[in-house]
Amino acid sequence: MPRYSVRLTRAEEREFVPFVHELLGLAFATIRGYFLGGTSVMTKGDASPVTLADRNAEAQMRRAIERRYPTHAVIGEEHGTRPGRRYRWVLDPIDGTRAFITNCFLFGTLIALERDDGDGFRPVLGVIGHSAAGVALIGHLGGTTLYASDGSSRAARVRPCSRLADATVLATTHWSTGEQRGGPAVERIIRAAKLYRTWGDCFGYFALATGAADLMLDPTLAYWDVAAIVPVIEGAGGAVTAWNGGNPLAEPSLIASAGPLNDIALGLLRRG
Amino acid sequence: MPRYSVRLTRAEEREFVPFVHELLGLAFATIRGYFLGGTSVMTKGDASPVTLADRNAEAQMRRAIERRYPTHAVIGEEHGTRPGRRYRWVLDPIDGTRAFITNCFLFGTLIALERDDGDGFRPVLGVIGHSAAGVALIGHLGGTTLYASDGSSRAARVRPCSRLADATVLATTHWSTGEQRGGPAVERIIRAAKLYRTWGDCFGYFALATGAADLMLDPTLAYWDVAAIVPVIEGAGGAVTAWNGGNPLAEPSLIASAGPLNDIALGLLRRG
Repeated sequence: MPRYSVRLTRAEEREFVPFVHELLGLAFATIRGYFLGGTSVMTKGDASPVTLADRNAEAQMRRAIERRYPTHAVIGEEHGTRPGRRYRWVLDPIDGTRAFITNCFLFGTLIALERDDGDGFRPVLGVIGHSAAGVALIGHLGGTTLYASDGSSRAARVRPCSRLADATVLATTHWSTGEQRGGPAVERIIRAAKLYRTWGDCFGYFALATGAADLMLDPTLAYWDVAAIVPVIEGAGGAVTAWNGGNPLAEPSLIASAGPLNDIALGLLRRG
Repeated sequence: MPRYSVRLTRAEEREFVPFVHELLGLAFATIRGYFLGGTSVMTKGDASPVTLADRNAEAQMRRAIERRYPTHAVIGEEHGTRPGRRYRWVLDPIDGTRAFITNCFLFGTLIALERDDGDGFRPVLGVIGHSAAGVALIGHLGGTTLYASDGSSRAARVRPCSRLADATVLATTHWSTGEQRGGPAVERIIRAAKLYRTWGDCFGYFALATGAADLMLDPTLAYWDVAAIVPVIEGAGGAVTAWNGGNPLAEPSLIASAGPLNDIALGLLRRG
């Protein structure tokens, strides 16, 4: 399977992994101050919800990045783009704002670090952090690690699965309750699965990367989500594909699994 | 709306609420030792999964109850029934074992305390505890309280909602991926909702009782689930109904909302 993230050097790992823990600490502290608190919800231009938790968590992370790495670029879901060179930080403070405002523990903070080797920015490091549960995955091609708030950590790895009948399939939105891309094909995939749940947003990738689910489907995503997820899944030994069969960074959508189920899902989606 | 739990006295509240925190402490410590650890899964007679976390958490709670209240009855999902009188403890150590083994934070521990006033056991106190997120609801007709692991607590209350078009609707299993009771009617309810997700097992009731979701639907449950959920929802100002329109303790299934949506859902289910 092709890889869409690029290798982090040892020096970069030593420099940026501790810094990413700092960013997560800032985001988690901010978000926990709002979670379960009946936060008031605003609506963005695209009709998606946003809260002060989203805005303040991103502002905290941006401030820390600007102080430590003033030449790096930053893209964030809530506060736009800041130009820079060589490295770019991609932030989604709360992926799953609908979960967050439903008091649901599955939302998460997404962080990607990208490097430009002369041919444009590509992700080298990705983070999925679940503040409600106090756990985070930090991944790159050298490996993905699960960190828990008690200070423990261990390697995260996808589990082998090559048949839909054995698969736990997760998705964010339900395929038939909206005008969903791939409707009938997705329905067939889901009906063939062993277990199907809308345990989605970034949690679906958390479950996949920790070897507890087998296929995660997201027909449309934002760039800031894909950039963080790709290194986490690839570092855990999994594979990512866009719904058009290509690079999910170019066509933000995801099919993610240990590998074989990407081809099976893609085949079914192509058949329509 | 009728109420199916009965009132806890002040003396009982002083006696049992602190004890329930002890039980939760035991269950949470046991479950956290297994969660995210790739626990091996056994299959029960009814084909449902069970893990050592389920069995050991229930054993811990039973031991504490037997030591403190040797005359009380106990029913547990994993270790059966122990006879007793006046009071009965009803335990489901992990409601949502499928979530647990998918590394999903939505599973919970359910505890009910029932009292027999001469006409059989009826729930007086209910607990929904989410160990992955470190939060718990303890409820009775005098009120439901949300406790967080940082020691904070606040009253939990359902939010008003009287139209499906405004409602966040949650369910445990997806209505069309199995031979689900009420299939087409449930599909209509879900399609009419503002947001629908399978954020289920006891989490759906957690979201409802904390004013973040509006309707939770469970076509079939076990008695040990209903007994804990009913006091939590009623204590938060909500209403519970069985799918046959009657007492969910007699016909274990649940429609739960702030009130008006129970009648609307029941009406749609009756029409089929």
